[in-house]
Amino acid sequence: MNLRKLGEDRLVKLLTGGWKNSVRTLVGVGDDCAVLRGEKAGGSYLFKTDAIVENVHFTAKTPPALVGRKALARALSDIAAMGGEPVAGLVTLGLPPQTSVRWIRSVYRGLTALAQRYEVDLVGGETTQAPVCWINMVLWGKMRGAKPVLRSTAKPGDLLWVTGRLGKTQQRHHLTFLPRLEEGQWLARSGWVTAMMDLSDGLGADLPRLARASRVSYRIEEKSVPRRPGASYFDACQEGEDYELLFTTLPFVAKKLRTKWPFSTRLTCVGEILKRQQPAQGLPSHSGYDHFQQR
Amino acid sequence: MNLRKLGEDRLVKLLTGGWKNSVRTLVGVGDDCAVLRGEKAGGSYLFKTDAIVENVHFTAKTPPALVGRKALARALSDIAAMGGEPVAGLVTLGLPPQTSVRWIRSVYRGLTALAQRYEVDLVGGETTQAPVCWINMVLWGKMRGAKPVLRSTAKPGDLLWVTGRLGKTQQRHHLTFLPRLEEGQWLARSGWVTAMMDLSDGLGADLPRLARASRVSYRIEEKSVPRRPGASYFDACQEGEDYELLFTTLPFVAKKLRTKWPFSTRLTCVGEILKRQQPAQGLPSHSGYDHFQQR
Repeated sequence: MNLRKLGEDRLVKLLTGGWKNSVRTLVGVGDDCAVLRGEKAGGSYLFKTDAIVENVHFTAKTPPALVGRKALARALSDIAAMGGEPVAGLVTLGLPPQTSVRWIRSVYRGLTALAQRYEVDLVGGETTQAPVCWINMVLWGKMRGAKPVLRSTAKPGDLLWVTGRLGKTQQRHHLTFLPRLEEGQWLARSGWVTAMMDLSDGLGADLPRLARASRVSYRIEEKSVPRRPGASYFDACQEGEDYELLFTTLPFVAKKLRTKWPFSTRLTCVGEILKRQQPAQGLPSHSGYDHFQQR
Repeated sequence: MNLRKLGEDRLVKLLTGGWKNSVRTLVGVGDDCAVLRGEKAGGSYLFKTDAIVENVHFTAKTPPALVGRKALARALSDIAAMGGEPVAGLVTLGLPPQTSVRWIRSVYRGLTALAQRYEVDLVGGETTQAPVCWINMVLWGKMRGAKPVLRSTAKPGDLLWVTGRLGKTQQRHHLTFLPRLEEGQWLARSGWVTAMMDLSDGLGADLPRLARASRVSYRIEEKSVPRRPGASYFDACQEGEDYELLFTTLPFVAKKLRTKWPFSTRLTCVGEILKRQQPAQGLPSHSGYDHFQQR
């Protein structure tokens, strides 16, 4: 059996199924970030690793500053999905020896500029030889005035929401998106949100993950899903790299949430959470991106 | 200009020279681990990323359990070099789609076994497509009853020490070594150690790094450097992957250190720290491993 046959979700389950953690780990494998117990009562830290690879997540034609930017922005999106605040980051670069120093400097310039914008300290990293370029970004974050929002805590009856619009991400959006950090932090502090994750592999792959983690089902209203200009419903579910927030709230807060929402970012209720026994409704079948099965 | 011409140390300096960090970062780029301020007064966390790549750090013939073991052991060696204790880890895997699931499971088995031995919680990770296999290991650690020992704090007159023996690492040692965690923690708590790092690129590359970081020079006694059977002095300085501790102590503690040392691990004084103006003595020239210049 090889990876193409097995697929990513089953691989992760197979590999990490036997992991047993100590009381220091509040949330291990399976959420957007790991959550570790802090020194103070109730305090917790977030911990995330994420990699981008040449010819998978970017190409030789991608402007290098946007490659560096993307490496950090993706990991920030996972911190956002917990409602957290990024603190410090580590960068590992795999590089062929013939890589031009000019290219690498531009990658770092893009990465550093975004780090400054979000006040992330870049505290170290590593360079190693590799046959193609890849960048692994690690973030350490914390929660400020809120508990981390997990993807495993949605309940039947909750409403389903997304930020922004979905689909048509491959032209520019996957390189230039803004991680929804302020939105995620605000949602975590609101106390209305019951579960949250970021959309990186498309609604079609990520919503079923949230549902599995929460042991629930869902109903999506096709018409309500906000799309980028030119995106079909299938695109919006399947393309991935939206880096928007997918979250659930208590059912009675819809009006308050819309009224108090302080951001220009679009906010849309796209469906609801059903009981586990009910059939999932509204997603096109076979949508969403699998890292080993689709390319 | 490409990487082969520039070399690794100059690349890192070029890329990270402009990084500016907040007060939350106690030690940024340039030591074995980054050091972040903890919540409690005087408390600190360690933060480390490290990658191994197929055909650079292992081959298709390497037993996969030892590949996984090595990925974690290398990062543990960096935690050891600060005198720290590992707490939690993240794993990122880059994998070609045709990789066999059996191979990956063995990699994880080796990694998980070592994690259990050192009580490291594996709390998450990521898998992504890549043209060759690579494993990026991230560790989060803490200090228990000691301050982190840096590589930048050696003083003229200090004695230079190494643990274990050096050289002839490429047959088995680079896959089976034990990270010097207990030794590093003991040394940090002793209060006698003035600077420390781990030997990953060979004494010939790593001692000059310690000297540059501390703004000092050094004298090594060739005869005193402990070697593995069959290793020449050049091998001992040049091969790399020793994963032993290189450290300096106050000059007057040599006898006490030897008497109190509670480990079976060999402990050898190999030289002393000189003033910056004095010429470095005793290392063969052009020794030590550079990731971009030598292969």
